[in-house]
Amino acid sequence: MPRVGIIGGGQLARMTAQAAIGLGVGLRVLAERPDDGAATVVPADRLTIGAPGDEAALRRFLAGNDITTFDHELVDVALLSRLVESEGHAIFPRPSTMALGQDKRRQRNTLTRLGFPCPPSALVERLADAIAFGDRHGWPAILKASRGGYDGRGVWVVPDAAAASALVPDLLADGVPLLIEERVRLDREVATLVARRPSGETVAYPVVETVQRDGICRRIVAPAPIDPALADRLVGWSCHLAEEIGLVGVMAVEWFVAGDEVLVNEIAVRTHNSGHYTIEGSVTSQFAQHLRAILNWPLGQTILTAPVVVTVNVLGAAGVTTPLATRMPTALAVPGAHVHVYGKTPRPGRKLGHVTALGTDVDEVSARAQMAADALAGSLGREDQDVIGKG
Amino acid sequence: MPRVGIIGGGQLARMTAQAAIGLGVGLRVLAERPDDGAATVVPADRLTIGAPGDEAALRRFLAGNDITTFDHELVDVALLSRLVESEGHAIFPRPSTMALGQDKRRQRNTLTRLGFPCPPSALVERLADAIAFGDRHGWPAILKASRGGYDGRGVWVVPDAAAASALVPDLLADGVPLLIEERVRLDREVATLVARRPSGETVAYPVVETVQRDGICRRIVAPAPIDPALADRLVGWSCHLAEEIGLVGVMAVEWFVAGDEVLVNEIAVRTHNSGHYTIEGSVTSQFAQHLRAILNWPLGQTILTAPVVVTVNVLGAAGVTTPLATRMPTALAVPGAHVHVYGKTPRPGRKLGHVTALGTDVDEVSARAQMAADALAGSLGREDQDVIGKG
Repeated sequence: MPRVGIIGGGQLARMTAQAAIGLGVGLRVLAERPDDGAATVVPADRLTIGAPGDEAALRRFLAGNDITTFDHELVDVALLSRLVESEGHAIFPRPSTMALGQDKRRQRNTLTRLGFPCPPSALVERLADAIAFGDRHGWPAILKASRGGYDGRGVWVVPDAAAASALVPDLLADGVPLLIEERVRLDREVATLVARRPSGETVAYPVVETVQRDGICRRIVAPAPIDPALADRLVGWSCHLAEEIGLVGVMAVEWFVAGDEVLVNEIAVRTHNSGHYTIEGSVTSQFAQHLRAILNWPLGQTILTAPVVVTVNVLGAAGVTTPLATRMPTALAVPGAHVHVYGKTPRPGRKLGHVTALGTDVDEVSARAQMAADALAGSLGREDQDVIGKG
Repeated sequence: MPRVGIIGGGQLARMTAQAAIGLGVGLRVLAERPDDGAATVVPADRLTIGAPGDEAALRRFLAGNDITTFDHELVDVALLSRLVESEGHAIFPRPSTMALGQDKRRQRNTLTRLGFPCPPSALVERLADAIAFGDRHGWPAILKASRGGYDGRGVWVVPDAAAASALVPDLLADGVPLLIEERVRLDREVATLVARRPSGETVAYPVVETVQRDGICRRIVAPAPIDPALADRLVGWSCHLAEEIGLVGVMAVEWFVAGDEVLVNEIAVRTHNSGHYTIEGSVTSQFAQHLRAILNWPLGQTILTAPVVVTVNVLGAAGVTTPLATRMPTALAVPGAHVHVYGKTPRPGRKLGHVTALGTDVDEVSARAQMAADALAGSLGREDQDVIGKG
């Protein structure tokens, strides 16, 4: 069997390891800590402990893999490129593609060049850049760290020039590469998910809505309640992008939708939270699909397995430190709740797992997924607990 | 998280380990060999190498588990009972229930006592018992090893008294406990699958047809094409049996159907080949269900996810010794083929994996599952390969 390694030991690697079992692929993991979500689900001879930027650990890890892929973007692309050149390692997506995934400025340049509709934005090299942009495009504006941000970290809503003056110089002094964007008025955020393999075969999943709060995705609704013609356009653009950048693997593209208008937000060249619904909600899970793509195996069907699929993320609730296991019975009592836990210690705001539900009515399906997710997080009201008890 | 251990490292344990990841249960495995299917998918600190009858290994294994369950019946029930008594281990299904699973004579006694329709049968303590039975009930008769048989092993079709004379004395001399049964004329074989947890909650899956050849299950079709009233009777009997024997976990019951007549064949008090279709074909896979049952967590829904679900077993083909991975691309090119491989070295007749397909038309779905299974086994004709290539 081909030896596939994944750099990073988080929940994406964990769910990839789970999918790999059925395909007969013994996933190898480079994890920072032995208690990382994916580190606890693979045999010792397939686990390397080390930081992704630790060259010795990375070299040791790559030497054992036929193909290497990623759980996150926090990698040293230059080092990886060098190792691809010098040692002939097969790394998918390619380091040059991953460079796009990890750098929002670079993404914006590529997307603009390819004619994607992008929100107005500018680089921020000094405070004056930010103030000039805000004064021209209006306040509040959105300040983003070009690299390293995720789950709402590295994104700031800046109300006015005074706020910019208080924030920007410190960030620049810390060496954070910055981008400023117009705050987009939007009806909803949606995401596309495509997979492409070296043969050129490309498949796309249906467009989904991603419901965010405080910059963190809370709920995914498939299919997104948008005009089918718009959905087709977004899928078409995403497939075009996959081809243009020579994608190998799975890629998610996030979009802002306002009426008939659409703007691209950002891309992730890996499996993505917006695709977790595919485990039960699609014929082919994004994790199996990613493996098939990097192995250059035929890609799987991407149709939904039910008219409506909803995934709700389980976030650590304030004051809840007891293990998830104690709340599993309540969550599992919700009919048709597919529970996935990530093996993490609970902390407020941390993504600890997700719940997927399937059905025909979006409100009913959402309510079920939400109830099980709240039960698992420990944030379920007494009244709801009674309802589940009676169910 | 509760520490759940499974005795045996075969494909049932492997698929249970896969299901355990989502539930946050770190499955522990007692495997005979480090290359067993389940041994290669769990971390070293959750793997014990040893035979299930090796008391020292078993004690070491049980000491690390909160709850222990089984991948197969080839265990020492007396030893397990002793350890439950003396050390207070929680073993589900209980050793007394497992004793029923491993001994066909004991099963027959229990099923007869509970009023189940059983084929006429007799114990064979000496050759004369077999000949008297055959002469009374007609030849050919079916001779069965009461213990240790599986996948067609331990079952002999005996055409006449002379054949019995040539076979029975040797088997008795080898200490094989024997049972002789009337050969049942049947239209089809079907199986029921139920789960029960300590709270008493019991759920049943739809009745499936199991298509056998040479005593080995080749194909599972869900739902079974039988009269719904008959299906209801079989499910009712199975739930009654689960309650009577105090089942904790999943149990399969195999039945012979001839017209409106039905006879029970045998039971397995564990996850079962006839339930592999549940991974994609049911809201709750039998592996997740078994874990939920032994953990006394609420049981999951058992409805089908499509009108028709077909699973085809992948058996090692004669002369094919190359790894399955080389044939994965052909198998995965079949639309909607869900491939599961067990991590075993190919040998003729060995169960190496299975393929599940979903749809609406039983012939179309069966053909797709069969084509992918044949591709994986290496027994696909040139013509079919061309068809897949064009697909």
